[in-house]
Amino acid sequence: MPAGDQAETRRIALIAGNGSLPAQIADALAAAGREFRMVAIRGEADAPTRGRADAELGWGEIGRLYSFLKTTGCRDILLIGGVTRRPDFTSILGDFGTLKRLPTIIRALTGGDDSLLTKVIRLFEDEGYRVVGIKDVAPQLLASSGVLGRVQPSQDDWRDVELALRATEKLGELDIGQAAIAVGGRVIALEGAEGTDAMLQRCAELKRIGRVRAKGRCGVLVKTAKPNQDLRVDLPTIGPVTIDLAQAAGLAGIAVEAQGALVAERDEALRKADAAGLFLVGLDLSPDAGTSDR
Amino acid sequence: MPAGDQAETRRIALIAGNGSLPAQIADALAAAGREFRMVAIRGEADAPTRGRADAELGWGEIGRLYSFLKTTGCRDILLIGGVTRRPDFTSILGDFGTLKRLPTIIRALTGGDDSLLTKVIRLFEDEGYRVVGIKDVAPQLLASSGVLGRVQPSQDDWRDVELALRATEKLGELDIGQAAIAVGGRVIALEGAEGTDAMLQRCAELKRIGRVRAKGRCGVLVKTAKPNQDLRVDLPTIGPVTIDLAQAAGLAGIAVEAQGALVAERDEALRKADAAGLFLVGLDLSPDAGTSDR
Repeated sequence: MPAGDQAETRRIALIAGNGSLPAQIADALAAAGREFRMVAIRGEADAPTRGRADAELGWGEIGRLYSFLKTTGCRDILLIGGVTRRPDFTSILGDFGTLKRLPTIIRALTGGDDSLLTKVIRLFEDEGYRVVGIKDVAPQLLASSGVLGRVQPSQDDWRDVELALRATEKLGELDIGQAAIAVGGRVIALEGAEGTDAMLQRCAELKRIGRVRAKGRCGVLVKTAKPNQDLRVDLPTIGPVTIDLAQAAGLAGIAVEAQGALVAERDEALRKADAAGLFLVGLDLSPDAGTSDR
Repeated sequence: MPAGDQAETRRIALIAGNGSLPAQIADALAAAGREFRMVAIRGEADAPTRGRADAELGWGEIGRLYSFLKTTGCRDILLIGGVTRRPDFTSILGDFGTLKRLPTIIRALTGGDDSLLTKVIRLFEDEGYRVVGIKDVAPQLLASSGVLGRVQPSQDDWRDVELALRATEKLGELDIGQAAIAVGGRVIALEGAEGTDAMLQRCAELKRIGRVRAKGRCGVLVKTAKPNQDLRVDLPTIGPVTIDLAQAAGLAGIAVEAQGALVAERDEALRKADAAGLFLVGLDLSPDAGTSDR
């Protein structure tokens, strides 16, 4: 990067998957006066994202993507939003730019989810681009430390937080999932490939059928990053839907890692949490963090 | 225990929860010429169990249970079958024998699942009874070591076995679940309070919606005991239903711990596994086990 090329003045390309996050990031960047262009991933990006995108490209159009980055002068890239369908081999057989890079791309597409994302980053970096994260461009969207809403966790809630946190740490060591639910002093659900939302729905069902018994609002969802998770492309995220599902599951609250998780649609999420009587906390998990706030 | 009181001649009381296991154990004991009496747990035991039970007792009838054990001369107890509904406080307020023991019972009913079972055992042992396991009375029902059916695991299958096994070990350290599923080199599901069957159904759904991608029959269910699990009362179990669900989930096979898991309805389970092309293996996890068979 040339000297004097201030990071905060570089134009950013948002490469946008599904969900409402790409539009929120676009809003945050616009509010901060940051220049950006948006590319919607075909088959993933939702209508509002596609509506404000400068281009829409499929998995096979890597060549066109690089042309877009070049002509728009974007050298920073933010990969944002969900990708539900992992591209299969045939869908990447696209334009010439793709074919040219095929050997590298094929190598990148093999292996687990996390190494895939890491390799996608490397694909961009190998061509001189910089992959940034939300932390770099819109840190105000990350969870801050402490109790975020109006509801305070009880002592029992903190015990469940500790239990579920220990479970997510184990999950992380195995590079499996990011989230766990503890209810009444017992971990009852661990996230695998199903994702956090499906796990919350399972928790609601377990309570409904009496397999997990709890009196009143009880239990905690903890969601943290895995040790090797690249937060630039894979940030633990909660939002209004998470709050709704946690409420439906009869949980008392949600805990995420401060500075290490995104609270999507923050105002709406906090409003819902307060209204439902759910707590929302950001845990300071940095090695030098005291335990006095917990 | 008095000298000369041979364990294999002592009359056993089967205290039977739900599922087909109590009847199978009764068959195995009858075939081996062991004397036994069966008590069906009201609200848990299925009709076939209740049909051959000598008594049916509810959670609150602890006093009656002890009378039954005394009059039938049973001093060994086998707790067998599932218990779906954890007894709540009110349902144990039963007969005089229960009330007399209430302080002890209340202490036993607090805490996690495992400690509860351990404490239930202690309740019996404190009154001079011996709680035995399937290993003690019908070891032939446990999984043996090696490939149990006709289908052999491939090298990829063994890799998934190793991965899922490592996950169940972590789960065990946290005293959470007993089972995990790995597909194509990735752990995709971990068992929490939902149980193995529900986890297998989730795996089928994850494949159906494309969230887990696998070509052909692929992936392994591994089910092992937790480190502190008392195998006398809580033995990892698979059976024909497990095979059906593993088949529906598109898995390649199932691995359990040799001598540490029950294969319920073994003949039927093996027949189904062979017919579905699923492997079934017993892993020798004893500390001095070589790895040559894996």
